[in-house]
Amino acid sequence: MIVKCTVAYDGWAYAGWQKQENALGIQEIIESALEKIHKKPTSIVASGRTDAKVHALGQVFHFESDGKIQPISYVRALNSLLPLDIRIQKAEKAEDDFHARFSCRSKRYLYIATRNQKDPFACRTKGILYQDLNVEQMLDACQFLIGTHDFTTFSSSRIDPRKSRIKTIKMISIEKRGQDYYFSFEGNGFLRYQVRMMTGTLIEVGKQTIAPLDVQKMLDLKDKEACRYNASPQGLYLMEVCY
Amino acid sequence: MIVKCTVAYDGWAYAGWQKQENALGIQEIIESALEKIHKKPTSIVASGRTDAKVHALGQVFHFESDGKIQPISYVRALNSLLPLDIRIQKAEKAEDDFHARFSCRSKRYLYIATRNQKDPFACRTKGILYQDLNVEQMLDACQFLIGTHDFTTFSSSRIDPRKSRIKTIKMISIEKRGQDYYFSFEGNGFLRYQVRMMTGTLIEVGKQTIAPLDVQKMLDLKDKEACRYNASPQGLYLMEVCY
Repeated sequence: MIVKCTVAYDGWAYAGWQKQENALGIQEIIESALEKIHKKPTSIVASGRTDAKVHALGQVFHFESDGKIQPISYVRALNSLLPLDIRIQKAEKAEDDFHARFSCRSKRYLYIATRNQKDPFACRTKGILYQDLNVEQMLDACQFLIGTHDFTTFSSSRIDPRKSRIKTIKMISIEKRGQDYYFSFEGNGFLRYQVRMMTGTLIEVGKQTIAPLDVQKMLDLKDKEACRYNASPQGLYLMEVCY
Repeated sequence: MIVKCTVAYDGWAYAGWQKQENALGIQEIIESALEKIHKKPTSIVASGRTDAKVHALGQVFHFESDGKIQPISYVRALNSLLPLDIRIQKAEKAEDDFHARFSCRSKRYLYIATRNQKDPFACRTKGILYQDLNVEQMLDACQFLIGTHDFTTFSSSRIDPRKSRIKTIKMISIEKRGQDYYFSFEGNGFLRYQVRMMTGTLIEVGKQTIAPLDVQKMLDLKDKEACRYNASPQGLYLMEVCY
């Protein structure tokens, strides 16, 4: 039986989703807890990685279960073993052909940046801004990012050169709430660092160090060296994975 | 010149306000930053200690300045040197006889406890509850705590036996907000662990493991061994110190 789990985590203390040579990945911690429950090693597959310090409210992973445990019982069983900053939200039986990565239709990310430099809690949960942002200018720039494009410019040099860099962004919204700016992104998939690099670039537009049209020019270059902006990881949240 | 500073901190990573033999105190970190600014050691005096992992939004401390730096300039100067989870909110010239501890008239604390066991961020910022609380019963119990009493029952065995254990609590309020319970306390001063032990006791009343009247009985015992309840530190916030 395939079990589909939704997990939320505070990424602050972790080196990211994936197993690392020199640091503990969230995947590894959940697999250790599953091994305790199943009394044998169990691999899990997530919708995709999240980087070091990046949070998730709705990351999804799946694993193979022998069916001895009711799917819903994994919530309590896993949460009693996991650290308090990794919390299983939901566990359910999935179709036999369900795959957390390959069945994914779209993902939603949120980036929170704040102007409040005096909030001692922000350093673990938000990107810190040192000036106000022009929301109108940023929204103008979003128009160049929405749609189907080759996003090589907004990706890590460490991504597999054989993989397609063409992705579709369905929606970007930017909203000011008090001293915070909320950037929401929805797309069929994102390259490594893409959300943080797009956010970092939009922030530069908001600071008016670059113009909205520069975003179009950067995108057109399809060059990994064309974007130097990368918003800090602790402001990023994987909100939802849609199947 | 006496400078009065208001500071907010996320206490999660720290061993508390005071210098420790084997761990870094928040006081020590601020003194190190001041030493860099003044180019000589500068001691600071706070309104009181906070324990390991306890947060503050409005802790107050004072120090002696030679007047070369405008008081308000300490905000930026200190914040540029301090870790991001310790943030100076305000710095101002105080009266010559101002003393952060002795001039304090009252303090306000907030304790946040949550029923949301699935929030991965709560473990650093809220106490976690495993059952619902009866707010009416807790409010009944508060009536026994409000007023001037010997609070020996709700104090640490490590407090100085020569010091008075008589304190006045002006106000306690308890409010349910979504899945969270907000406990507010205002008093002329609090003994070590007093707020956490009162909160822990009120939570037991809310769980109905003890009756409101038991709180009166515990208080009357004036015995450090009479209360075994101590709410976890990461839910506690020193909100305001009034002068």
